[in-house]
Amino acid sequence: MTKNRVGFIGLGLMGAPMAANIARAGYPLTVYNRSADKAHGLSPLGAKVAETPLQIAAQSDVVITMLSDAPAVEQVLRGEEGLLAGGRDGELLIDMSTVSPEQSRSIAIEIESQGWRKLEAPVFGSTGPARDGTLGIMVGGDEALFQEQHELLSVMGQDIFYMGPMGAGTLTKLAFNLMVAAQVASLAEAMALATKGGVDPRQFSDVLVKTAVASALVKRKLGNLVEGDFSAAFPLKHMHKDLGLMIDTGHSIGAPLPATGAIHELFTAATARGRGDQDAIAIYCLLAELAGLTPDTSSPH
Amino acid sequence: MTKNRVGFIGLGLMGAPMAANIARAGYPLTVYNRSADKAHGLSPLGAKVAETPLQIAAQSDVVITMLSDAPAVEQVLRGEEGLLAGGRDGELLIDMSTVSPEQSRSIAIEIESQGWRKLEAPVFGSTGPARDGTLGIMVGGDEALFQEQHELLSVMGQDIFYMGPMGAGTLTKLAFNLMVAAQVASLAEAMALATKGGVDPRQFSDVLVKTAVASALVKRKLGNLVEGDFSAAFPLKHMHKDLGLMIDTGHSIGAPLPATGAIHELFTAATARGRGDQDAIAIYCLLAELAGLTPDTSSPH
Amino acid sequence: MTKNRVGFIGLGLMGAPMAANIARAGYPLTVYNRSADKAHGLSPLGAKVAETPLQIAAQSDVVITMLSDAPAVEQVLRGEEGLLAGGRDGELLIDMSTVSPEQSRSIAIEIESQGWRKLEAPVFGSTGPARDGTLGIMVGGDEALFQEQHELLSVMGQDIFYMGPMGAGTLTKLAFNLMVAAQVASLAEAMALATKGGVDPRQFSDVLVKTAVASALVKRKLGNLVEGDFSAAFPLKHMHKDLGLMIDTGHSIGAPLPATGAIHELFTAATARGRGDQDAIAIYCLLAELAGLTPDTSSPH
Amino acid sequence: MTKNRVGFIGLGLMGAPMAANIARAGYPLTVYNRSADKAHGLSPLGAKVAETPLQIAAQSDVVITMLSDAPAVEQVLRGEEGLLAGGRDGELLIDMSTVSPEQSRSIAIEIESQGWRKLEAPVFGSTGPARDGTLGIMVGGDEALFQEQHELLSVMGQDIFYMGPMGAGTLTKLAFNLMVAAQVASLAEAMALATKGGVDPRQFSDVLVKTAVASALVKRKLGNLVEGDFSAAFPLKHMHKDLGLMIDTGHSIGAPLPATGAIHELFTAATARGRGDQDAIAIYCLLAELAGLTPDTSSPH
Repeated sequence: MTKNRVGFIGLGLMGAPMAANIARAGYPLTVYNRSADKAHGLSPLGAKVAETPLQIAAQSDVVITMLSDAPAVEQVLRGEEGLLAGGRDGELLIDMSTVSPEQSRSIAIEIESQGWRKLEAPVFGSTGPARDGTLGIMVGGDEALFQEQHELLSVMGQDIFYMGPMGAGTLTKLAFNLMVAAQVASLAEAMALATKGGVDPRQFSDVLVKTAVASALVKRKLGNLVEGDFSAAFPLKHMHKDLGLMIDTGHSIGAPLPATGAIHELFTAATARGRGDQDAIAIYCLLAELAGLTPDTSSPH
Repeated sequence: MTKNRVGFIGLGLMGAPMAANIARAGYPLTVYNRSADKAHGLSPLGAKVAETPLQIAAQSDVVITMLSDAPAVEQVLRGEEGLLAGGRDGELLIDMSTVSPEQSRSIAIEIESQGWRKLEAPVFGSTGPARDGTLGIMVGGDEALFQEQHELLSVMGQDIFYMGPMGAGTLTKLAFNLMVAAQVASLAEAMALATKGGVDPRQFSDVLVKTAVASALVKRKLGNLVEGDFSAAFPLKHMHKDLGLMIDTGHSIGAPLPATGAIHELFTAATARGRGDQDAIAIYCLLAELAGLTPDTSSPH
Repeated sequence: MTKNRVGFIGLGLMGAPMAANIARAGYPLTVYNRSADKAHGLSPLGAKVAETPLQIAAQSDVVITMLSDAPAVEQVLRGEEGLLAGGRDGELLIDMSTVSPEQSRSIAIEIESQGWRKLEAPVFGSTGPARDGTLGIMVGGDEALFQEQHELLSVMGQDIFYMGPMGAGTLTKLAFNLMVAAQVASLAEAMALATKGGVDPRQFSDVLVKTAVASALVKRKLGNLVEGDFSAAFPLKHMHKDLGLMIDTGHSIGAPLPATGAIHELFTAATARGRGDQDAIAIYCLLAELAGLTPDTSSPH
Repeated sequence: MTKNRVGFIGLGLMGAPMAANIARAGYPLTVYNRSADKAHGLSPLGAKVAETPLQIAAQSDVVITMLSDAPAVEQVLRGEEGLLAGGRDGELLIDMSTVSPEQSRSIAIEIESQGWRKLEAPVFGSTGPARDGTLGIMVGGDEALFQEQHELLSVMGQDIFYMGPMGAGTLTKLAFNLMVAAQVASLAEAMALATKGGVDPRQFSDVLVKTAVASALVKRKLGNLVEGDFSAAFPLKHMHKDLGLMIDTGHSIGAPLPATGAIHELFTAATARGRGDQDAIAIYCLLAELAGLTPDTSSPH
């Protein structure tokens, strides 16, 4: 069976290795990125480089977007050189960006009015699984359409879940990210409390890794804290964006999120104080400052 | 070498199996519990039953307390039939209850003024590890004294940590429990958000267990949620008590805990609404009610 | 000097008396409301009734909008019968709705690209001042334009403030509303705390009105609480909407709002539980429920 | 009728003028303060100076305490030179300190077991009303006892409320202070939001004073903000203490206080960062720092 022609838009830290896996799996691939140099990195794998989203639409059966937020998705859709200016009837958009259910449904309505179809398919897992093709993928939209695309999604992910109609995939992603944010923030609060009270951070870490709260995430972030390594695996500003989407979604559908609301404000502060490009666990640094820990004692390493 | 005579006060769900392990390890053991019937359960293992804390003091070299809170500890210390009314000079109290560092130091000062010595040694792990002697134990107090008692502690626990001076053990316990509370509360918020938004709770659970947030604790509580099982492994009211200690400790030592503060108020509400004897994960039920989920939809099973 | 022809869109509880004052002041007035019956209520004052926003644009020099939120404003702007489908070059929109600075600027950009001009002019004060023409009005936009319209605004308001460029008026409104929400929510928390602890609500009210916290707002809401009157002067769902705008604005501009974040989640819960059409002070009822106050005791009257 | 002999303990900013009013009203007065120099300031008004609380007990029919917190009250009660070491049967303690209902009842039980009687009578109003004898006084305890002491209380206060049994007076005080803290914190959040968004602080202040949220407290604190005057009328650390009592009381009696919980953590941070001796409105400075406002822009004056 002939493979669908795939277009891929958004070649960031996650998108680039995901697109590479598609190329390696033998799909005819055209790629687009706002800064074109990233697109050319895919050329050795046989990918064609488009100069506009419109060209992607023309050369693809399925278009995948992996972008930073909903406005970025809307930007590639609209305008004279946007996706929607081209595309054949029934062309499929698989949006893998993290957006809110409301945004996802709004985009679906917009493109379906132009004859396109849509699946939402946000992911969990960071750059490692993106490279290895072992991401988790949470899909929302028409189930038959999902089944049709399962093979393509399997090239990028290992655990692929059909969650329900449009919005169910993005909601699952937000609810999962809520737990990521809470585990990061609570680890930071716990470390600040222990450190301010005189407990040695390494010893505290040695205890925690033995306990039932030691998820893979907690273990990784504990390592960052002990080493004082705040380089971004998942930038704080992205988690801030996602926290905003959670709060807005809870507001819209009527689900109060008191702990998440408090964490959101912490991340607003950390972003305002210039930590947006550090890893999310740099929220510890903010809490250490709030606790009046001096520079000598505020970093646990 | 002759083994120390051990007294054990507080034979609840945790204390009873811990005391049993001490008896089995060959320590001469005397036990006391406010309701005496629980004490007699230890007799088949050779434990003597005391009728007052005072008798425990007289018949022991080391006294262990495993009680619900600091006032309960103070109650066994004070009064005409209390521990402090007896005891030889240098007698040792190992308090394994979860209390705040401030309370622990205050108790230490009180009993040291009467010639006693003290270690604090709160634990992590629930009834299973208590039975198997595989608890984690976080010790604060004099390090030489800790070394002397290592063998006795090893009878109850597997991972035994010396954390520093009096207060360091209880602070570590509170900081760890902070993460327990946050993982429970954030799981509840995530499940309420997903359920209110129409995602199937079992499917959401199937996703979560594959992710980096799936600590042993999260997996266990997810099972409870999906089965609708809110019988208490760790009663909500105890977590409420511990959250209060965290907030008070953060207040005293100057460590702000914004997310924990929000979670504390949630637990105040759940306790006020009669859920104190359910498991801590019943905080989900409160959030489901707040989200306006009807009885039919509020329980995810 | 000939008076400008004024168009008024949005004849709700606030808009209707505001429009009436404009008619009485002698401005040629055309009005539009989605449900036309409200528009006809203005006819006795000489107002013409338009059937579409487009007709308003054609018959006015200045168009005033007083609508529930930004999407409602966008709806009257767009489409074949929308304001922007008509209007002469340089026609002025004065948007008096409560929207966020970001939404206000976005609307300004949209209509200026069509040759319109814009002022934002949200108000404080409820139906009484709307009727009496004694509202407070906080204006953002071009200062010369503000000066030109001062006479028209004076017909509706008594205290008229020029706050700065587009966004400054709406931000001032949100910051003021933040304090309204906090005074309402803290009164509710205080009353729930006192009532749960056995203090008589009327006595508590008698104390509060004598103190330095007794703003006009607090006094009015205390009256509602003591009488058990939760009929809406300012509906809870509107305050919920405004709280969402505050949180989003704090997120965007980098101003953390921890107390407001907690209050926002409370209002999400109250709305989800069906209290959106009650007055904002019905947040007390939610807190009373959370405190486990029985129906007999939950209402302080 | 012969006037009771009054003892007064605690001659701080509030206590000194209150004691002076008692002396001026013709009550035989003995005073005690930990640092004796403050006590001698009352001598010109005819007050005798005691060297210990024990001496106060011996020379008084009624003893008034106006101290910083419950431990300070307990300290004057206990010990060989404490109040309880002396005093005749039925001697009366009127504790006017701000303590929690739980602490107040616990002190009552302790002193009643020694034959004393007790009223709690915390106040509202600051140094001005203390000097003018126009404080508000909220009394809890036996009502007949309250009636007996009304005349004495009237010397210090203008609005004197009998709130109910022991605990009702202190609970009323805490619930009132909850609103003080919320008005201060929300003013700070509103000012930080407006300032970060570019609104001029003086203009914002000019708007606010015209609105329904402008309580006497808000007006006074707005003045402080605009002048950049953070000298303590009510020290931030005292409000932090009171917030802790509110949270503990809500925890104990089952009244969740989500907004207050968030505000409490803010005050923990401000105290930890060295602002405890500034006025409570210095919470604005913390929020301005969190918003990333530079020193030039963080102070609105």
